[in-house]
Amino acid sequence: MKIGLVGLGKMGYNLALNMKEKGHDVIANDVNKESMEAISKEGITTAPSVKELVDSLQSPKVVWLMVPAGNITEQVLTEVSGYLSEGDIIIDGGNSNYKDTLRRGQSLKEKGIYLLDCGTSGGMEGARNGLCAMIGGEQEAFSHVEKLFADLSVENGYLYTGKPGSGHYLKMVHNGIEYGMMQALAEGYEILDKSEFDYDYKEVSRVFNNGSVIRSWLVELLENAFSKDPKLETIRGVMNSSGEGKWTVETALDLEVAAPVITMSLLMRYRSQENDTFHGKVVAALRNEFGGHATVKSE
Amino acid sequence: MKIGLVGLGKMGYNLALNMKEKGHDVIANDVNKESMEAISKEGITTAPSVKELVDSLQSPKVVWLMVPAGNITEQVLTEVSGYLSEGDIIIDGGNSNYKDTLRRGQSLKEKGIYLLDCGTSGGMEGARNGLCAMIGGEQEAFSHVEKLFADLSVENGYLYTGKPGSGHYLKMVHNGIEYGMMQALAEGYEILDKSEFDYDYKEVSRVFNNGSVIRSWLVELLENAFSKDPKLETIRGVMNSSGEGKWTVETALDLEVAAPVITMSLLMRYRSQENDTFHGKVVAALRNEFGGHATVKSE
Repeated sequence: MKIGLVGLGKMGYNLALNMKEKGHDVIANDVNKESMEAISKEGITTAPSVKELVDSLQSPKVVWLMVPAGNITEQVLTEVSGYLSEGDIIIDGGNSNYKDTLRRGQSLKEKGIYLLDCGTSGGMEGARNGLCAMIGGEQEAFSHVEKLFADLSVENGYLYTGKPGSGHYLKMVHNGIEYGMMQALAEGYEILDKSEFDYDYKEVSRVFNNGSVIRSWLVELLENAFSKDPKLETIRGVMNSSGEGKWTVETALDLEVAAPVITMSLLMRYRSQENDTFHGKVVAALRNEFGGHATVKSE
Repeated sequence: MKIGLVGLGKMGYNLALNMKEKGHDVIANDVNKESMEAISKEGITTAPSVKELVDSLQSPKVVWLMVPAGNITEQVLTEVSGYLSEGDIIIDGGNSNYKDTLRRGQSLKEKGIYLLDCGTSGGMEGARNGLCAMIGGEQEAFSHVEKLFADLSVENGYLYTGKPGSGHYLKMVHNGIEYGMMQALAEGYEILDKSEFDYDYKEVSRVFNNGSVIRSWLVELLENAFSKDPKLETIRGVMNSSGEGKWTVETALDLEVAAPVITMSLLMRYRSQENDTFHGKVVAALRNEFGGHATVKSE
């Protein structure tokens, strides 16, 4: 299948290689000229502009967007759709908010253009060697490109999730779950670390991964991390986030679902980004006011 | 190796079969006569009493206890140790609180008897076909029985964790992590269930397990559960617990570790066991008092 791929970042670059390896005829474009040069050295055709990329495709045209969620996706999608016509298909493989996806899909539908929302998991390694893909959108558009998803995914690693938005929604919830699982693991290792015992965390992770109930890819990744840095001394415990955990919590609030663990995981990430907190000052001040308890002076 | 095994419950029974299959000479005892009869039909020798079981072993004697944590472990351990002498080894394979283990180990050490604390994971299937075992205690006692642990565990599935208590402590933290991971998953599936989309949870679990970051044994178990009951309609959402999550939270408090996710997971289990709550009545009463907000009448 001939596919246009817009976006050659960490994910898109590896996805292009994956597409080529599976025998698809991929033509790629990115604003970054270095990525374009690098991928063309891998034997992948590039188009100097999005317009030329779209022009080179046959109808029904299939364009896969692999660009950062938010404004960039909005801009690229608007440009791409301007060159498409009825029956063409856009796959948004980024982590778009499902509400944006619903709005965009509605607007594209008026022009007869299909939008498939494809949440992907598995990181760069997955993009290169086998995605986990969760795809929402119109059934007929999905059917047209199902073979592509089958080829790019690990075995049993793709799912048509139903109506538009359901792919990005599922990926959002997946990431919310991931936040909770990661925080649970993190707390556990800290309870080990502050204990009277002396554990080898690489070995602990190894034994957890062989026959235990918490066996998981995340614990495999910990085994790797601890094998490189036994106490993670080179890393500060700052936990960034990129939106999907927050959306999961916002959605839980909208739906009035009690989701304290996913919520606390997100809040602990925010806390980790501050060296000091105003709430801490408030509590310390109050303890001092009512009980004369000592405060710690600001540095 | 000749081993005495006390306790033929769900775990012990399967462990006995595992021991026999790996060529160990196991002699078993349980207070339940039916379990004794059943296991002897499997070709495993039984001893009519704990004393006769211990008498049949050669020094250094090795006795594996696989009985419920708490009073029963305390009683059986006291009885067994009464028949043992210097250099003999007791393995406590149950989920004992590590503080009990430390106390018991100290008391046994005065008589020259070794106590190995072995936390096991993997459920009945693990006991039968390959444990995940985390073993604390004196190095020389561990070395004497290491081959046994290697035989009974899955490949790479056992770890000598160091000084006495460290095996049960690690297993406790493992279970605390398990609580958090399970609650994170549970909240995620509820956010799917209350959404505008219509997911097939067996298929969702299947795709999560193939290439996604949250791939795990727990999600494999969900795939099984949803394949039998697509919406889990036959199960009420009552989440029981058996102690180790609580101990993990108590330990986090003792060590002053911020562990909100593991803690919330435990508290959500407690909440799930109540049809109504007094705290709910208190909040409803206050909203009524200050704002005239309607209350829901008790049934």
